[in-house]
Parts: sequence; structure tokens; C-alpha cells
Amino acid sequence: MQKGYLLAPGPTPIPPRVLQAMSASIIHHRVPAFEALMAEVREGLKVVFQTDREVLIFTTSCTGAMEGAVSNFLSREDKAICLRAGHFGERWAEILMSYGVIPVNVDAKYGDPIPAGAVAEALQKNPDAKAVYMQASETSTGVTLPVREIAALVRKRPGTILVVDAITALGVFPLHTDEWGVDVVIGGSQKGLMLPPGLAFAAVSEKGWRMFEASNLPRYYFDYRKELHAVRKNQTAFTPAVSLIAGLKEALRMIRDEGLENVFARHDRCARATRAAMQAIGLSLFATASPSSSVTAVKVPDGIEGGKIVDTLRDKHGITIAGGQGSMKGKIFRIAHLGYVDKFDVITAVAAVEMTLKGLGHPVTFGKGVAAAMNILES
Amino acid sequence: MQKGYLLAPGPTPIPPRVLQAMSASIIHHRVPAFEALMAEVREGLKVVFQTDREVLIFTTSCTGAMEGAVSNFLSREDKAICLRAGHFGERWAEILMSYGVIPVNVDAKYGDPIPAGAVAEALQKNPDAKAVYMQASETSTGVTLPVREIAALVRKRPGTILVVDAITALGVFPLHTDEWGVDVVIGGSQKGLMLPPGLAFAAVSEKGWRMFEASNLPRYYFDYRKELHAVRKNQTAFTPAVSLIAGLKEALRMIRDEGLENVFARHDRCARATRAAMQAIGLSLFATASPSSSVTAVKVPDGIEGGKIVDTLRDKHGITIAGGQGSMKGKIFRIAHLGYVDKFDVITAVAAVEMTLKGLGHPVTFGKGVAAAMNILES
Repeated sequence: MQKGYLLAPGPTPIPPRVLQAMSASIIHHRVPAFEALMAEVREGLKVVFQTDREVLIFTTSCTGAMEGAVSNFLSREDKAICLRAGHFGERWAEILMSYGVIPVNVDAKYGDPIPAGAVAEALQKNPDAKAVYMQASETSTGVTLPVREIAALVRKRPGTILVVDAITALGVFPLHTDEWGVDVVIGGSQKGLMLPPGLAFAAVSEKGWRMFEASNLPRYYFDYRKELHAVRKNQTAFTPAVSLIAGLKEALRMIRDEGLENVFARHDRCARATRAAMQAIGLSLFATASPSSSVTAVKVPDGIEGGKIVDTLRDKHGITIAGGQGSMKGKIFRIAHLGYVDKFDVITAVAAVEMTLKGLGHPVTFGKGVAAAMNILES
Repeated sequence: MQKGYLLAPGPTPIPPRVLQAMSASIIHHRVPAFEALMAEVREGLKVVFQTDREVLIFTTSCTGAMEGAVSNFLSREDKAICLRAGHFGERWAEILMSYGVIPVNVDAKYGDPIPAGAVAEALQKNPDAKAVYMQASETSTGVTLPVREIAALVRKRPGTILVVDAITALGVFPLHTDEWGVDVVIGGSQKGLMLPPGLAFAAVSEKGWRMFEASNLPRYYFDYRKELHAVRKNQTAFTPAVSLIAGLKEALRMIRDEGLENVFARHDRCARATRAAMQAIGLSLFATASPSSSVTAVKVPDGIEGGKIVDTLRDKHGITIAGGQGSMKGKIFRIAHLGYVDKFDVITAVAAVEMTLKGLGHPVTFGKGVAAAMNILES
């Protein structure tokens, strides 16, 4: 027997009551029972998005909603500032280029954040930029970017919107959509929302909807306005992933019952414990400035093959974490503390990393990382 | 207590073993266990699609894969022949226009099929048409279109592809993708595949992939080639709806165990029984020529409000069927016999229609429709 533990930055573990809700008999989506479900989900999503706006619901992996955040707001040959601090920042640039939009890239070395000053400079040099695309939490490096400061810059410009991929930020750390004035916030189901993959979300500001009017890029399935009209009637424009929406209701209730502030505090605590533990083991963190509360990226120590850490954790210990993506492959490993994760998951992950490294010949004193984590988890 | 019965043309009922498979703990999608799952699903889908081609898997409602069947193969200002026999034919035209493609519409009166001769004529008049878009089964009217005959016409033209929305045809009645030479076949999870909504599929011919090379429309999430490369490695390009893929494995096993020919025969039997029953009750079928084995559309009798039939069936009897869409609203109702549906579901539906009509003041002799259905179901 080997118990399995999912500690990757999405999909994340599904709480039993969410699994149960999803395995109830399916209902049709054009009936009052579905509309009642949607009415509850609609309010719950606003809490997680920290917004009074409607939150649009798409049946798609998150990338689809990201694509919609380009095709609904821009036009061919528009210019957009694109923050690239990792794999998912690069994805924004790829999507922009697919649609004939010209990305002005503001790059950081992997593992580093991007200071708001660099964005201010790019905005100054490109007064015609129609949008700024960024991540709140760059899942590939475990770094957060300064959404609040960048939002303050973009707010001053009536012709520019700020689009934030908050996929591993929502339900993890504060992102004050309305208060900060973030124009488009994108989320997904398989992260802090504790669901399987298959749903993605978007909340759009008034300024965003004005940009929508001027946009001429082709779109159909990811048409944001169609979904806005639908959600106002407690519906979706196209047949939705009904079972995931049934699970979403439960997940949102769990977040409501725990309280969003407590959810944030739990993620922060697990993240700090994981970082302290990795350092106590003698490992170096990949993201030292502005590390994310959703995932901790750790440098693979010299002389060890990075892939072997991930494989041993999975095959010998039943623990799924993530390796590095793209050019970070083999150089880092990533432990997520995201969603339905609490203190003993962190302790499990840390103990398993200790066992794995020792097994691979790295000098480790058993329990040193675990103790460091415990000190923070119990403080 | 009121038991619920789902007899709408999607979502369709989910078999308990599929629900069970979906409610197991979630696995990560970049691990060997997921790849083993995909390897099995990949072969099972080829059986249902009656093809040796790879079947691409998208996490989306079906419309997303339909959109991809436009954006991956055509270019702006291309011309495409579009068969419109109902709501979903109209959707093809809408998608084409969203992308600046010029649709040449071949229309039928709702409830009628479109003869292959009309398509031959359109092809002759439009030798520059790059594609023909059609439904195998038009879910909104319950009619089938002659895929085989139209495929024979399109096959002769090296610069034209045939794109078939087979969403309510796959796993319902024969569609010989390879043998007939259909270039692009689109399917979805929540129909004959007995799953919740959230996955869509596409199988593409060599000719289709050549058209892909020449296409210049923007695409990112629905990039068919990215998914082809991924599926060859038992993967998906983006985070997939893992739990639905786990359910898909079970559903495909059920189809394999029953045998595809038996699945087709069961659908045909249920469809014939439903049609005979409705006529025995004294109702008129909406699609008299080429009715589909997936759904039976029935005319609302004079003097009765169509919406009341659907509402009474649902609220009084717990049975979800579908009304008419668009201009057919209130004029027809649609009983699906699609997916995890067998004889007693048909008998239940027929008995409930008898009770409902009688309750609404329509003259009905109880059991007449049921007996007509039974005669066919037991023959």
C-alpha cells in the first residue's frame, strides 16, 4: 500500500465533500435547479475575487480564459506590455503574438519578481500600449509580482487596462480586484478553489468593458460579453461542466466557512514553513524576493539530478510535486501548498524531501527541516 | 420523494461506474499514471470515432472544438459552405463569420434534412469553397444529414475539407470517419460518451492537416496541432479536466464491452420506439425524413403551450427533456434516447408524456403510446 499525496501547483487535492458533490447525479443546465446552483456560485466567486463585479465562468483549462483576455480587449497590431518572469509570462506573450498583437516584454531573470518601476518605464516609453499583461503569482518560479503597485500605474491611463493572471493567487493571498482597480482578473478551478481542472473565470472592470467595445479580434467560445449576459441570468453561454460547478458550490462554501482571511493566513503559514524547512535542510530557495504563498521553488543541490528528486518522491513515497518547466527543468523542484493543504501536508512533504535527498546521497540530518516547519506551523 | 430522469440531448445520464471513477482522488496530469490512462482512452476514442487517426482531446464545451475546426483550417476571407438545418448549423455560420470567413449557406426548413444534391450544387457554384461544415445529427431538430454522400462529393476536391459536428452522432449511429473520408469529426463528452460536459474531441485527416498548414487564422488554446503532438505522447497540451478523463476511461470500457454495433442497435431501437409511441399518442413528429437516433423532436399539439409540457414533465414527474431552441421554442419538445439510456427510460418518458398531456387537457388513452414503444423494444 502506498498513500498518494498531491502537492503540485495544480491540480491540487480535492476535499471529500467536493468529490461527493461532483459525483451526485448530473442535472441539466437549463433547469431551475442549475440556476439556483449558479446563483450561489456567482456570489461565492465574488468573495474569492474580492469584487462586486460578475465573475464569468468558462468551461476550459485556464489558458482558454487567458486567450479570451487578449481576444476580447485588443485589436490586431495593438501594442501590449507583457511581464515575463517565467513560463506563464511567456505564455501571455505567445498568445499576444498569435493574435497579431505586438508585445513589449518586460523580463525578469527566472526566480526574480518584476519591480513596478520597470513597468512604469515601459508605460512611459509606450504611451500607446493598450494593456499590461502579468501574473499575480508566477507558478513556474514561485514568485509574486506587485499587482497593487502596477495597478496604481495603469489606473491613471484611461486607454490602458491591467490584465492579471491570478490563477495561483486567488484564494491564496489578497488580491483586491476592485479596491486596487485591476481591470481583468483570471482564475482557474484546480488551484485555490480545490476543484479538478476544467473551469476558468474572469472578472472585468468597466474600463475593460469599454475596451471590449473597441476590440476587433475574432472570438466565439471565449466571448466575454456572451458570458456576462448569461451569468446575469444564472446561466452560462454554452453547456458548462455541470459536475464541476456542483463541486464549486461546495468548495466556495468551505472557503466561506473558513473565512477568506483565514484561508490566506493558512497559505502564508504553510509557505513560510516550507521555505524555512528547505533552508534548514541546507537547500537554496529559487525565489528569494517576493516568494509566493502558493508554491515554493527550491534549487536542486549540486551533484543531484533534479528529475530524480521528483521521480523518487513520486515513485518511492507517493508524493507528487512538480519539477521545473522549460529551461528550469532539472534545476528546480516545486512544492505546492495550495488549496486543500494544511500543516501535516507540509510536514509530509518536508520529511519526504529529507528522505529522498538522503537516498540520493545528499547529506541530510533527518528531522531538521521538519522541525523548522513545525516551529512556524505551531507559532 | 421524486426520482429524477435526465432525457435531454446532453448532458445525458452518467453511469454509476463512471461517477465512481470520476470521484476517485485526483491525479496530476504530468505523471506516468495519467499517461497510462491517456493511452487507454486514446485507443478507446478511435473505436468510437471509427478511425485510425489520433483523436484530439480538448477541455472545453463542444463549441470550443467547433471553433477550432474553423480557426485551424481556414484563412480570413476564405469561403466555406455551411449547412444550416437548425440551431447548430447556424452556430457554424456564426463561428465562420466571427473569423471573417464567408459562409455560403445551404439551408433546410427546420425539421428537414439537407439532400446531398443541394451540397453538390453549392460546391459546383463555389469551386473556391475551402470547406463544408455540417452536422451529422442536428440536435435542435432531431434530423440527420447525409454525411456519407456529402463526404463522397468533397473527397473529389483536393482543396476542400468536410467538417462534421458529430456531437450527437458518435456512439449513437455509424459514422465511418476513415472509410467515408470525413476530414474533421468533432465530438463531445456529454452525449453518447455518457460523461458530464467538459471535454470535446476532434479527429483530422491528412487532407485536413495539409489545410492546417495554409491556414492563417489566430488560435492558441484550440490549436489542433499542439494537441496532436501532445496526444502522441499520451498527454494534452494544457492542463486537462483530469477527472473527466478518468470517467472517460470507464465510459469507453462500457462501450467496448457492449460492442459498438450493439450500442448503435440500442439507440436505433429506443429511437424507433419513441417515434412509434409519439405517433400512437396522436402526436406528429417534427423530423419525418431521416430522424436521428439520438433525439426525437415532437410537435406540440394545437391548443397546448409547449413550455408547459417541458415544465410539467420536470416539476411534476421529475423528467428533464428539452424544449425547442430559438424560433422552435414552444413549438416542439425533444426527448433524447442518447447515451446511458435503455428501454425502461423510453417507457418512462412515454408514460410521462401521456400523463402530462392528459393533465394539460389533451385527449389521451393511457398506455397507447407505451404499448407501441413496448412492441418495438421487445421485437
